Amino acid sequence: MSHALRLASGLSRTYPWVSSPFIVSAPMRVMSGPALAVSVSRAGGLGFLGPGVQTQDMLRDLEETASLVQDLRTSSSVFPSAVLPVGVGFQLWADDLDTAVAGIGRFKPCAAWLFAARDGSSDYDRWSRRIRDASSGTQIWVQIGTLAEARGLLAGSERPDVIVVQGAEAGGHGRAKDGLGLFTLLPEVVDAVAARRIPIFAAGGIADGRGAAAALCLGADGVVMGTRFLASEEARISRGYQGEIVRASDGAVSTTRTLLYNHLRGTMGWPEEYSPRTIINRSFVEHQAGRSFEELKKCHDEAARAGDAGWGPEGRLATYAGASVGLIHGVKDAAAIVHDAQEAVRERISH
Amino acid sequence: MSHALRLASGLSRTYPWVSSPFIVSAPMRVMSGPALAVSVSRAGGLGFLGPGVQTQDMLRDLEETASLVQDLRTSSSVFPSAVLPVGVGFQLWADDLDTAVAGIGRFKPCAAWLFAARDGSSDYDRWSRRIRDASSGTQIWVQIGTLAEARGLLAGSERPDVIVVQGAEAGGHGRAKDGLGLFTLLPEVVDAVAARRIPIFAAGGIADGRGAAAALCLGADGVVMGTRFLASEEARISRGYQGEIVRASDGAVSTTRTLLYNHLRGTMGWPEEYSPRTIINRSFVEHQAGRSFEELKKCHDEAARAGDAGWGPEGRLATYAGASVGLIHGVKDAAAIVHDAQEAVRERISH
Repeated sequence: MSHALRLASGLSRTYPWVSSPFIVSAPMRVMSGPALAVSVSRAGGLGFLGPGVQTQDMLRDLEETASLVQDLRTSSSVFPSAVLPVGVGFQLWADDLDTAVAGIGRFKPCAAWLFAARDGSSDYDRWSRRIRDASSGTQIWVQIGTLAEARGLLAGSERPDVIVVQGAEAGGHGRAKDGLGLFTLLPEVVDAVAARRIPIFAAGGIADGRGAAAALCLGADGVVMGTRFLASEEARISRGYQGEIVRASDGAVSTTRTLLYNHLRGTMGWPEEYSPRTIINRSFVEHQAGRSFEELKKCHDEAARAGDAGWGPEGRLATYAGASVGLIHGVKDAAAIVHDAQEAVRERISH
Repeated sequence: MSHALRLASGLSRTYPWVSSPFIVSAPMRVMSGPALAVSVSRAGGLGFLGPGVQTQDMLRDLEETASLVQDLRTSSSVFPSAVLPVGVGFQLWADDLDTAVAGIGRFKPCAAWLFAARDGSSDYDRWSRRIRDASSGTQIWVQIGTLAEARGLLAGSERPDVIVVQGAEAGGHGRAKDGLGLFTLLPEVVDAVAARRIPIFAAGGIADGRGAAAALCLGADGVVMGTRFLASEEARISRGYQGEIVRASDGAVSTTRTLLYNHLRGTMGWPEEYSPRTIINRSFVEHQAGRSFEELKKCHDEAARAGDAGWGPEGRLATYAGASVGLIHGVKDAAAIVHDAQEAVRERISH
């Protein structure tokens, strides 16, 4: 077997139900709910719950997840009993640590994915310590988008169990200005982290087995897909939004990073290092043409009341998505997404 | 053998001396001279001569190349006799078609790499026809950086023999604003071109076998390295410049796209779709801080007189390079670059 396909032994001990290559569904805020996360883990990947509108929402999602997993345990022994075979994601600048820790302590998710700290590695250290105190079986995953962030993590007092390297093609929030794609960023981080033997996962622009295989060749131990899972049967997403993921092509041109849609939705306060990638529609086109924010906001709010019709090239609503949209041509169930990607990887890099 | 490692049969007929995986040295303006191009082809890759300061310079380079190849032919029969086993690159907006065609007709390079047309696919069609009339054995390679350009080529009257897809990490001139990395761009172009069966080569951000293997997994038939070959013994480059390629790290942050250095050097007229990626030094830092162009130009011209000392973090001179600089840690001879990359690819994606 090619060494790119071999799971790091620590990973196969910690996540024994996961098959190689290691496929993860990203913790997309609100949209990655229990149905998606459990389907991905059941298919031999690792599913993450996304942050909720409020941290408190995570508790409801964890409770539902635990119930779904309990149903599966009665018919199969694939999942270990000590942890919930699903991870949870937090945006550190916005989420409440005490509430997060309470949920983690009670439900023991196998992993906590930390992202977007306001104060960099000191925040990651603080969250990591509290989470580990509450649940020793919960692994700490930290998402970064630059080599400097990777170095900051290595200099911190808490060693992350997994580092997720996110490239510039990623949808939703990522580095606003100092990020590039995975082609050079990923191997540079792999080299910088090599001596510490921390597994590296790749995210951003991966939507099928081709991208997954490429990331493994660049040195990743596993891959994360986000946008691809927005077009899954299990995603907690509006039909209009999902239709746009399937429709859009030419991701380098049809998506852009902008804070406009955050502001139209009333989302403020993200640390300035981040901005989200979104599919371009009327709101952005007219913003570029100079239309006032007040007018755009009025049109946006009207579109929000229109439901699914508010998305689309002539729509107004936020359509956070990665540049991989042009590789996604239909809605599939999450298990098929995992299995199709795994098979395509094996065709490319196994014997 | 993994299908990602199998050379398209047309490629192995046309370039019989090339071994799999197919590695190309990019036609970097002035810096890719006869010594580099011939070394790469001799090592089982395909070397390209870069455009000269003037198109006329290409004739001298072709003459020297022909002489180097003649010496090799006497000791080996690896190269076919009908063509020169080296390609030539042109920037269409700047190069003179009549001069280019005269050189191609006389020296029969195996490939002509066309880039940066001012009028898009009609220019490529015109150059392609003239080149094919002058030398039927010269294959036409066209470099693009967006899906729209790929579609434009397919709609043109002349079918290119090879399409080179350049991602945003590339050094030197590439798409100024509408480009992204290869992770999503490359498979989207591969899908768009699939029905036409035109081989696709990947460029931009590839500096070792990891990136080469990744590009092959994403669907490329071969890979192009530029910056990596700037740090070769054979590159026609100043020592100070080359030292910077080796020194620089964190390519996503230490390089940027800017027209500043073009203007400092007096290079004007590039079509507005393009700008070059360069390693950041004092000129750019002070430009960002608001120092006037006149003052920067004066400092730049002084630095130019200082020779090798004009490069470096405190230097002033243009240091065009890709974001892969952080993956390049030393100067190697071109044959070692080709062989090391090929071997690392085989470790990753062959059985």
